Amino acid sequence: MAEYTPPGTRWLHLPSPFPMKRGGALVSARMAYETWGQLDAGKSNAVLVLTGMSPDAHAASSAENPAPGWWEWMIGPGKPIDTNRWFVICVNALGSCKGSTGPASVNPSTGDLYRLDFPDLSIEDGADAAAAVVHALGIEQLACVVGNSMGGMTALSLLARHPAIARSHINICGAARALPFSIAIRSLQREAIRLDPHWNNGQYSEEDYPENGMRMARKLGVITYRSALEWDGRFGRVRLDSERRDDDEPFGMEFEVESYLEAHARRFVHRYDPNTYLYLSRSMDWFDLGEPHAGDTLTGLATIHGVQRALVIGVKTDILFPIQQQEEIAAGLRNAGCDTRFLPMPSPQGHDAFLVDEERFAPAVAGFLRVLPNENFITEMVA
Amino acid sequence: MAEYTPPGTRWLHLPSPFPMKRGGALVSARMAYETWGQLDAGKSNAVLVLTGMSPDAHAASSAENPAPGWWEWMIGPGKPIDTNRWFVICVNALGSCKGSTGPASVNPSTGDLYRLDFPDLSIEDGADAAAAVVHALGIEQLACVVGNSMGGMTALSLLARHPAIARSHINICGAARALPFSIAIRSLQREAIRLDPHWNNGQYSEEDYPENGMRMARKLGVITYRSALEWDGRFGRVRLDSERRDDDEPFGMEFEVESYLEAHARRFVHRYDPNTYLYLSRSMDWFDLGEPHAGDTLTGLATIHGVQRALVIGVKTDILFPIQQQEEIAAGLRNAGCDTRFLPMPSPQGHDAFLVDEERFAPAVAGFLRVLPNENFITEMVA
Repeated sequence: MAEYTPPGTRWLHLPSPFPMKRGGALVSARMAYETWGQLDAGKSNAVLVLTGMSPDAHAASSAENPAPGWWEWMIGPGKPIDTNRWFVICVNALGSCKGSTGPASVNPSTGDLYRLDFPDLSIEDGADAAAAVVHALGIEQLACVVGNSMGGMTALSLLARHPAIARSHINICGAARALPFSIAIRSLQREAIRLDPHWNNGQYSEEDYPENGMRMARKLGVITYRSALEWDGRFGRVRLDSERRDDDEPFGMEFEVESYLEAHARRFVHRYDPNTYLYLSRSMDWFDLGEPHAGDTLTGLATIHGVQRALVIGVKTDILFPIQQQEEIAAGLRNAGCDTRFLPMPSPQGHDAFLVDEERFAPAVAGFLRVLPNENFITEMVA
Repeated sequence: MAEYTPPGTRWLHLPSPFPMKRGGALVSARMAYETWGQLDAGKSNAVLVLTGMSPDAHAASSAENPAPGWWEWMIGPGKPIDTNRWFVICVNALGSCKGSTGPASVNPSTGDLYRLDFPDLSIEDGADAAAAVVHALGIEQLACVVGNSMGGMTALSLLARHPAIARSHINICGAARALPFSIAIRSLQREAIRLDPHWNNGQYSEEDYPENGMRMARKLGVITYRSALEWDGRFGRVRLDSERRDDDEPFGMEFEVESYLEAHARRFVHRYDPNTYLYLSRSMDWFDLGEPHAGDTLTGLATIHGVQRALVIGVKTDILFPIQQQEEIAAGLRNAGCDTRFLPMPSPQGHDAFLVDEERFAPAVAGFLRVLPNENFITEMVA
């Protein structure tokens, strides 16, 4: 598939050439984003939202695109990230296939799609690209940067590489480094795509597409995004009724949970670019905020300056970004002198809880932002 | 691959025809087993070991086969299952490819391999076949039946279907029914095999073999058999050194954990029959001791009679057979009037802990068996 960008998306060009951490540079690259609310005169009320691997920038509905966004209950007038007060920016990650430049974009130097000619992509590149969007919008300091999942990694990298770019931070189901269990899961997802003969070293088309590899990768993703506890209550041992089964298919689906995975996979397979999946997935494995500090994560976190307040949320049933990793982030931010609150959520939904557990996440985020002062600390310090 | 049977294996023929729970029957089927120690004159000192999905009957070394078995530290003279006292039988599961009749065996009615002509296989069939082995050895009542993982399911089925076949029971990382998270994992493993074009509806050969599907299935297995906690300490973020990497392979392996999975998969792929994998894997999904009781697991467990004492062990880091399932078994056996001890182990190794955590599992099993009386309760009750 090619890129898919929702209506209402805006674009900004990155500085060109845009150097990449592991070598190479992007020419005429662009970042897709959406905004909600109004930037105030002092440009001090901006909240940046950094997403997980698969979402686009359409986090909430807008006049240009009234379709519900992926975080519809979180962002909007009177909602936890209140657009009556905040100017909210959501960027589509660098390297994604939802509007920002990535492996599914045209390489201006060849006129063909980048595919595997896209340079190695790191979380740090995504952070630098997000910083470029912030600066291009004329914003010197964000009131808050919010990062979920992969976006939680990107947010930490942004804060470490761009000192004082935000005066507060909400990290949700994030991590300061990838650990071997998650690396193993993601490696297996990438292997499923790579082993599909239709992947063809990245040279697939919509007609000759690594559908099976993508299906496997997505199903494994969904399994690790949710939790056993939730599924016990939701699916139990319920069987598919006979008209939803194909009894001629040997070892075909029998249980509701199998059908749920299949439906998720079908929706995803052709709406997400396989090469993009490989690049973004690997960027998470590579991420280690402690890398420049002999692998010491807490030292890496201690390099974060200028963040006055932070809220770190983890989910006890998350197996992909386990709660110890959010505890680590909270401890590191505290060491760095940041006033940090750590919230371990008992949500049953696993890693995906931040997308669905409105009851727990809405008041937590609303409460944190409500008491956040509006003024710009940089201005204060300079004054 | 064809069947692989270790030296020292013995065989017993099952009653022929041997009826299968979901229909059909096996003709001239056989069960592979090994034994250690001596059966006493009263035939009252037999301990039956039922295995997980992949092991053969070679649980421990013997004169006929001095190679270490898969539970070498558990079974032997002076070991926790002490062969100076107990006559230990380990059976290879019905349907396996390690000596017992299964999809990789010759179908006597055609002269060809069964492949997908093997009848539907249930845990209950495995239990009935194990009971047949016990009876064929002239044993009326086992001193103990020990079941690990899938063998823990088989043991519960054996006890429910063959009243008073054992007077004690050790259930390790077992389950009284399959739950949706484990069903999802196993369904995905089967899908990986089925989607491999070389699987060819079960009509593969050693030369045209579903190697990629088996590799994926095994890697996902290994991921779910261990735990994130163990891997953090064991692998961390350690990279492969350059001579162990193939830098020309796009998105190839970089981390130690990836190489570990690859090594496990390579060892397994051609030593386990793919159709057998499908049959045994599905038999676990189907298993539900509560099925004849409107899905009520505790009622299913309450049908178990004649077991005087039980030890139920679970592992807190087990994500495949989570510890709530062993708690459920213990609660059910207590309801059934059995003197039951539940041991939640803090082992970091996940589901596989029973294979490797000798320090915790050896004393637990030894302590339970040490105080077990030798006499035959059935004889007592009849007398």
